[in-house]
Amino acid sequence: MTGDPAPEAPRAGETVLDFDPAGRAEAGLVFIGRVRTPWSPGDCPKNIRAARETGRAASLEIAAPYRPGLLGLEAGRWVMVLYWMDRKRRDLIVQRPGHVDGPRGVFALRSPARPNPIAMSCARITEIDAEAGHVGLDALDCFDGTPLADLKPWLPTVDAPPGT
Amino acid sequence: MTGDPAPEAPRAGETVLDFDPAGRAEAGLVFIGRVRTPWSPGDCPKNIRAARETGRAASLEIAAPYRPGLLGLEAGRWVMVLYWMDRKRRDLIVQRPGHVDGPRGVFALRSPARPNPIAMSCARITEIDAEAGHVGLDALDCFDGTPLADLKPWLPTVDAPPGT
Repeated sequence: MTGDPAPEAPRAGETVLDFDPAGRAEAGLVFIGRVRTPWSPGDCPKNIRAARETGRAASLEIAAPYRPGLLGLEAGRWVMVLYWMDRKRRDLIVQRPGHVDGPRGVFALRSPARPNPIAMSCARITEIDAEAGHVGLDALDCFDGTPLADLKPWLPTVDAPPGT
Repeated sequence: MTGDPAPEAPRAGETVLDFDPAGRAEAGLVFIGRVRTPWSPGDCPKNIRAARETGRAASLEIAAPYRPGLLGLEAGRWVMVLYWMDRKRRDLIVQRPGHVDGPRGVFALRSPARPNPIAMSCARITEIDAEAGHVGLDALDCFDGTPLADLKPWLPTVDAPPGT
Protein backbone atom coordinates (compact mmCIF):
# COMPACT_ATOMS: atom_id res chain seq x y z
CA MET A 1 0.00 0.00 0.00
CA THR A 2 2.79 2.40 -0.91
CA GLY A 3 1.10 4.50 -3.57
CA ASP A 4 0.74 3.79 -7.26
CA PRO A 5 3.72 1.95 -8.73
CA ALA A 6 4.65 2.71 -12.33
CA PRO A 7 2.73 0.22 -14.51
CA GLU A 8 4.77 -2.51 -16.13
CA ALA A 9 5.42 -1.89 -19.81
CA PRO A 10 3.42 -4.06 -22.23
CA ARG A 11 5.32 -6.97 -23.80
CA ALA A 12 5.56 -7.57 -27.55
CA GLY A 13 2.18 -8.74 -28.85
CA GLU A 14 0.21 -7.22 -25.98
CA THR A 15 -2.53 -4.68 -26.63
CA VAL A 16 -3.36 -1.71 -24.46
CA LEU A 17 -6.69 0.16 -24.33
CA ASP A 18 -6.54 3.80 -25.41
CA PHE A 19 -7.90 4.82 -22.00
CA ASP A 20 -7.39 3.83 -18.39
CA PRO A 21 -10.49 2.11 -16.97
CA ALA A 22 -9.61 3.60 -13.56
CA GLY A 23 -10.59 7.00 -14.95
CA ARG A 24 -13.99 5.87 -16.25
CA ALA A 25 -15.68 4.50 -13.14
CA GLU A 26 -19.38 3.74 -13.50
CA ALA A 27 -19.87 2.24 -10.05
CA GLY A 28 -18.06 2.51 -6.73
CA LEU A 29 -16.56 -0.30 -4.71
CA VAL A 30 -16.01 -0.21 -0.96
CA PHE A 31 -13.32 -2.19 0.83
CA ILE A 32 -14.92 -4.34 3.52
CA GLY A 33 -11.53 -5.16 4.98
CA ARG A 34 -8.03 -6.35 4.14
CA VAL A 35 -6.40 -9.67 3.35
CA ARG A 36 -3.48 -10.73 5.57
CA THR A 37 -0.97 -13.08 3.96
CA PRO A 38 2.75 -13.84 4.28
CA TRP A 39 3.26 -12.59 0.69
CA SER A 40 4.85 -9.50 -0.76
CA PRO A 41 5.91 -8.58 -4.30
CA GLY A 42 8.56 -11.08 -5.33
CA ASP A 43 7.41 -14.14 -3.38
CA CYS A 44 3.64 -14.32 -3.97
CA PRO A 45 2.32 -17.66 -5.26
CA LYS A 46 0.61 -17.46 -8.66
CA ASN A 47 -2.69 -18.99 -7.53
CA ILE A 48 -4.38 -20.40 -4.46
CA ARG A 49 -3.31 -23.95 -5.20
CA ALA A 50 0.35 -22.88 -5.13
CA ALA A 51 -0.30 -20.81 -1.99
CA ARG A 52 -1.93 -23.83 -0.32
CA GLU A 53 1.05 -26.01 -1.18
CA THR A 54 3.35 -23.75 0.83
CA GLY A 55 1.39 -24.67 3.95
CA ARG A 56 1.16 -21.01 4.93
CA ALA A 57 -2.23 -19.70 6.04
CA ALA A 58 -3.97 -16.38 5.36
CA SER A 59 -6.71 -14.39 7.02
CA LEU A 60 -9.22 -11.60 6.51
CA GLU A 61 -9.55 -8.52 8.70
CA ILE A 62 -13.12 -7.32 8.32
CA ALA A 63 -13.65 -3.61 9.02
CA ALA A 64 -15.84 -2.90 12.06
CA PRO A 65 -19.07 -1.78 10.34
CA TYR A 66 -19.15 -4.94 8.21
CA ARG A 67 -18.53 -7.51 10.96
CA PRO A 68 -22.23 -8.28 11.59
CA GLY A 69 -22.22 -9.57 8.00
CA LEU A 70 -20.20 -12.61 9.16
CA LEU A 71 -23.15 -14.03 11.16
CA GLY A 72 -23.68 -17.65 10.17
CA LEU A 73 -20.25 -18.35 8.69
CA GLU A 74 -18.39 -21.17 10.43
CA ALA A 75 -15.01 -22.88 10.45
CA GLY A 76 -14.89 -25.63 7.84
CA ARG A 77 -17.02 -23.69 5.37
CA TRP A 78 -15.70 -23.04 1.85
CA VAL A 79 -16.09 -19.46 0.67
CA MET A 80 -15.42 -17.45 -2.46
CA VAL A 81 -13.13 -14.54 -1.56
CA LEU A 82 -13.16 -11.50 -3.85
CA TYR A 83 -10.18 -9.16 -3.54
CA TRP A 84 -9.05 -6.07 -5.39
CA MET A 85 -5.65 -6.32 -7.13
CA ASP A 86 -4.89 -2.64 -6.78
CA ARG A 87 -1.29 -2.66 -8.00
CA LYS A 88 -1.77 -3.75 -11.59
CA ARG A 89 -2.48 -1.72 -14.72
CA ARG A 90 -6.07 -2.05 -15.91
CA ASP A 91 -5.66 -1.43 -19.63
CA LEU A 92 -3.85 -4.60 -20.84
CA ILE A 93 -6.69 -6.03 -22.93
CA VAL A 94 -4.56 -8.64 -24.79
CA GLN A 95 -1.73 -10.25 -22.82
CA ARG A 96 1.14 -12.70 -23.32
CA PRO A 97 1.65 -14.50 -20.04
CA GLY A 98 4.79 -16.62 -19.86
CA HIS A 99 2.86 -19.88 -19.38
CA VAL A 100 0.68 -19.43 -22.48
CA ASP A 101 1.65 -19.89 -26.12
CA GLY A 102 0.70 -16.70 -27.95
CA PRO A 103 -1.47 -13.69 -27.11
CA ARG A 104 -4.64 -14.17 -25.10
CA GLY A 105 -7.53 -11.85 -24.28
CA VAL A 106 -7.77 -10.79 -20.66
CA PHE A 107 -11.19 -12.48 -20.29
CA ALA A 108 -9.59 -15.80 -21.23
CA LEU A 109 -7.02 -15.36 -18.44
CA ARG A 110 -7.02 -15.11 -14.65
CA SER A 111 -4.42 -12.33 -14.80
CA PRO A 112 -4.74 -9.73 -12.00
CA ALA A 113 -4.15 -7.02 -14.65
CA ARG A 114 -7.70 -6.51 -15.97
CA PRO A 115 -10.27 -3.71 -16.46
CA ASN A 116 -11.82 -4.51 -13.07
CA PRO A 117 -9.04 -6.15 -11.05
CA ILE A 118 -11.29 -8.40 -8.99
CA ALA A 119 -9.46 -11.63 -8.15
CA MET A 120 -11.31 -14.52 -6.60
CA SER A 121 -10.47 -17.86 -5.06
CA CYS A 122 -12.25 -20.59 -3.17
CA ALA A 123 -10.75 -20.90 0.33
CA ARG A 124 -11.67 -22.79 3.50
CA ILE A 125 -12.49 -20.99 6.74
CA THR A 126 -10.20 -22.41 9.45
CA GLU A 127 -11.42 -20.22 12.32
CA ILE A 128 -13.69 -17.24 12.74
CA ASP A 129 -14.20 -14.54 15.36
CA ALA A 130 -16.99 -12.38 14.00
CA GLU A 131 -16.81 -9.83 16.81
CA ALA A 132 -13.11 -9.22 16.16
CA GLY A 133 -13.63 -9.31 12.39
CA HIS A 134 -11.16 -12.17 12.05
CA VAL A 135 -11.59 -14.92 9.46
CA GLY A 136 -8.77 -17.48 9.21
CA LEU A 137 -8.34 -19.10 5.77
CA ASP A 138 -6.30 -22.09 4.66
CA ALA A 139 -4.47 -19.98 2.02
CA LEU A 140 -4.65 -17.04 -0.38
CA ASP A 141 -2.49 -15.86 -3.27
CA CYS A 142 -2.19 -12.08 -2.90
CA PHE A 143 0.04 -9.54 -1.19
CA ASP A 144 -0.44 -8.78 2.47
CA GLY A 145 -2.81 -5.82 2.79
CA THR A 146 -4.78 -6.42 -0.41
CA PRO A 147 -8.23 -4.78 -0.18
CA LEU A 148 -11.16 -7.16 0.30
CA ALA A 149 -14.32 -6.64 -1.78
CA ASP A 150 -16.63 -9.52 -0.87
CA LEU A 151 -17.01 -12.91 0.73
CA LYS A 152 -19.67 -15.44 -0.30
CA PRO A 153 -20.45 -19.02 0.63
CA TRP A 154 -19.22 -21.37 -2.09
CA LEU A 155 -22.15 -23.16 -3.72
CA PRO A 156 -21.50 -26.02 -6.15
CA THR A 157 -24.76 -25.28 -7.99
CA VAL A 158 -23.65 -21.71 -8.73
CA ASP A 159 -19.84 -21.76 -8.73
CA ALA A 160 -19.15 -24.90 -10.76
CA PRO A 161 -20.45 -26.61 -13.89
CA PRO A 162 -23.53 -28.77 -13.18
CA GLY A 163 -22.61 -32.23 -12.00
CA THR A 164 -19.20 -31.16 -10.69
CA MET B 1 -32.12 0.75 -16.10
CA THR B 2 -34.85 3.17 -15.17
CA GLY B 3 -33.16 5.13 -12.41
CA ASP B 4 -32.83 4.30 -8.77
CA PRO B 5 -35.84 2.48 -7.34
CA ALA B 6 -36.75 3.14 -3.72
CA PRO B 7 -34.92 0.56 -1.60
CA GLU B 8 -37.02 -2.17 -0.08
CA ALA B 9 -37.66 -1.64 3.62
CA PRO B 10 -35.72 -3.94 5.98
CA ARG B 11 -37.70 -6.85 7.47
CA ALA B 12 -37.95 -7.54 11.20
CA GLY B 13 -34.60 -8.84 12.47
CA GLU B 14 -32.61 -7.30 9.65
CA THR B 15 -29.78 -4.85 10.37
CA VAL B 16 -28.87 -1.84 8.28
CA LEU B 17 -25.48 -0.07 8.20
CA ASP B 18 -25.54 3.55 9.38
CA PHE B 19 -24.15 4.63 6.01
CA ASP B 20 -24.70 3.77 2.36
CA PRO B 21 -21.63 2.01 0.89
CA ALA B 22 -22.48 3.62 -2.47
CA GLY B 23 -21.41 6.93 -0.97
CA ARG B 24 -18.04 5.68 0.28
CA ALA B 25 -16.39 4.35 -2.88
CA GLU B 26 -12.71 3.49 -2.53
CA ALA B 27 -12.25 2.07 -6.03
CA GLY B 28 -14.06 2.50 -9.34
CA LEU B 29 -15.64 -0.22 -11.45
CA VAL B 30 -16.18 0.00 -15.19
CA PHE B 31 -18.91 -1.85 -17.03
CA ILE B 32 -17.37 -3.97 -19.77
CA GLY B 33 -20.79 -4.67 -21.26
CA ARG B 34 -24.32 -5.75 -20.46
CA VAL B 35 -26.04 -9.05 -19.76
CA ARG B 36 -28.98 -9.96 -22.01
CA THR B 37 -31.56 -12.29 -20.47
CA PRO B 38 -35.29 -12.95 -20.80
CA TRP B 39 -35.77 -11.78 -17.19
CA SER B 40 -37.28 -8.69 -15.65
CA PRO B 41 -38.30 -7.85 -12.07
CA GLY B 42 -41.03 -10.31 -11.12
CA ASP B 43 -39.95 -13.34 -13.16
CA CYS B 44 -36.21 -13.63 -12.56
CA PRO B 45 -34.96 -17.05 -11.38
CA LYS B 46 -33.26 -17.02 -7.98
CA ASN B 47 -29.99 -18.59 -9.16
CA ILE B 48 -28.35 -19.95 -12.28
CA ARG B 49 -29.53 -23.49 -11.62
CA ALA B 50 -33.14 -22.31 -11.66
CA ALA B 51 -32.43 -20.18 -14.75
CA ARG B 52 -30.90 -23.19 -16.51
CA GLU B 53 -33.93 -25.32 -15.69
CA THR B 54 -36.17 -22.93 -17.64
CA GLY B 55 -34.22 -23.82 -20.79
CA ARG B 56 -33.89 -20.12 -21.65
CA ALA B 57 -30.48 -18.87 -22.73
CA ALA B 58 -28.65 -15.62 -21.97
CA SER B 59 -25.85 -13.67 -23.56
CA LEU B 60 -23.28 -10.97 -22.98
CA GLU B 61 -22.86 -7.84 -25.08
CA ILE B 62 -19.25 -6.74 -24.67
CA ALA B 63 -18.63 -3.03 -25.26
CA ALA B 64 -16.42 -2.29 -28.28
CA PRO B 65 -13.16 -1.32 -26.52
CA TYR B 66 -13.16 -4.53 -24.48
CA ARG B 67 -13.84 -7.01 -27.32
CA PRO B 68 -10.16 -7.87 -27.96
CA GLY B 69 -10.22 -9.25 -24.41
CA LEU B 70 -12.32 -12.21 -25.67
CA LEU B 71 -9.41 -13.65 -27.71
CA GLY B 72 -8.96 -17.30 -26.82
CA LEU B 73 -12.43 -17.96 -25.36
CA GLU B 74 -14.36 -20.68 -27.18
CA ALA B 75 -17.79 -22.29 -27.25
CA GLY B 76 -17.97 -25.11 -24.74
CA ARG B 77 -15.80 -23.30 -22.20
CA TRP B 78 -17.10 -22.71 -18.67
CA VAL B 79 -16.62 -19.18 -17.38
CA MET B 80 -17.24 -17.24 -14.19
CA VAL B 81 -19.45 -14.26 -15.00
CA LEU B 82 -19.32 -11.28 -12.61
CA TYR B 83 -22.25 -8.86 -12.86
CA TRP B 84 -23.29 -5.80 -10.91
CA MET B 85 -26.70 -6.00 -9.19
CA ASP B 86 -27.36 -2.29 -9.43
CA ARG B 87 -30.96 -2.24 -8.23
CA LYS B 88 -30.50 -3.45 -4.65
CA ARG B 89 -29.75 -1.54 -1.47
CA ARG B 90 -26.17 -2.01 -0.29
CA ASP B 91 -26.56 -1.49 3.45
CA LEU B 92 -28.45 -4.63 4.57
CA ILE B 93 -25.67 -6.20 6.61
CA VAL B 94 -27.87 -8.80 8.38
CA GLN B 95 -30.73 -10.28 6.39
CA ARG B 96 -33.65 -12.65 6.81
CA PRO B 97 -34.22 -14.36 3.49
CA GLY B 98 -37.42 -16.37 3.24
CA HIS B 99 -35.59 -19.67 2.67
CA VAL B 100 -33.39 -19.39 5.79
CA ASP B 101 -34.38 -19.92 9.41
CA GLY B 102 -33.34 -16.80 11.33
CA PRO B 103 -31.09 -13.83 10.58
CA ARG B 104 -27.91 -14.34 8.54
CA GLY B 105 -24.98 -12.08 7.79
CA VAL B 106 -24.72 -10.92 4.21
CA PHE B 107 -21.35 -12.69 3.78
CA ALA B 108 -23.04 -16.00 4.64
CA LEU B 109 -25.58 -15.40 1.86
CA ARG B 110 -25.56 -15.03 -1.93
CA SER B 111 -28.09 -12.19 -1.69
CA PRO B 112 -27.72 -9.53 -4.42
CA ALA B 113 -28.22 -6.88 -1.70
CA ARG B 114 -24.66 -6.51 -0.36
CA PRO B 115 -22.02 -3.79 0.20
CA ASN B 116 -20.49 -4.54 -3.22
CA PRO B 117 -23.32 -6.04 -5.26
CA ILE B 118 -21.12 -8.29 -7.39
CA ALA B 119 -23.03 -11.43 -8.33
CA MET B 120 -21.27 -14.33 -9.96
CA SER B 121 -22.19 -17.59 -11.60
CA CYS B 122 -20.49 -20.32 -13.57
CA ALA B 123 -21.99 -20.49 -17.08
CA ARG B 124 -21.14 -22.30 -20.30
CA ILE B 125 -20.27 -20.43 -23.49
CA THR B 126 -22.58 -21.72 -26.23
CA GLU B 127 -21.30 -19.47 -29.03
CA ILE B 128 -18.96 -16.56 -29.37
CA ASP B 129 -18.36 -13.79 -31.92
CA ALA B 130 -15.51 -11.73 -30.49
CA GLU B 131 -15.63 -9.11 -33.23
CA ALA B 132 -19.32 -8.42 -32.57
CA GLY B 133 -18.79 -8.62 -28.79
CA HIS B 134 -21.35 -11.43 -28.54
CA VAL B 135 -21.00 -14.27 -26.03
CA GLY B 136 -23.87 -16.76 -25.85
CA LEU B 137 -24.36 -18.46 -22.47
CA ASP B 138 -26.47 -21.42 -21.42
CA ALA B 139 -28.24 -19.34 -18.74
CA LEU B 140 -27.99 -16.49 -16.26
CA ASP B 141 -30.12 -15.33 -13.31
CA CYS B 142 -30.31 -11.54 -13.59
CA PHE B 143 -32.46 -8.89 -15.21
CA ASP B 144 -31.97 -8.02 -18.85
CA GLY B 145 -29.51 -5.11 -19.10
CA THR B 146 -27.56 -5.88 -15.91
CA PRO B 147 -24.07 -4.33 -16.09
CA LEU B 148 -21.21 -6.77 -16.65
CA ALA B 149 -18.03 -6.40 -14.54
CA ASP B 150 -15.81 -9.31 -15.55
CA LEU B 151 -15.52 -12.66 -17.25
CA LYS B 152 -12.93 -15.29 -16.29
CA PRO B 153 -12.25 -18.87 -17.33
CA TRP B 154 -13.53 -21.28 -14.67
CA LEU B 155 -10.66 -23.19 -13.09
CA PRO B 156 -11.39 -26.10 -10.76
CA THR B 157 -8.10 -25.50 -8.91
CA VAL B 158 -9.13 -21.92 -8.06
CA ASP B 159 -12.93 -21.88 -8.04
CA ALA B 160 -13.72 -25.05 -6.11
CA PRO B 161 -12.46 -26.89 -3.04
CA PRO B 162 -9.43 -29.09 -3.80
CA GLY B 163 -10.45 -32.50 -5.08
CA THR B 164 -13.83 -31.30 -6.36
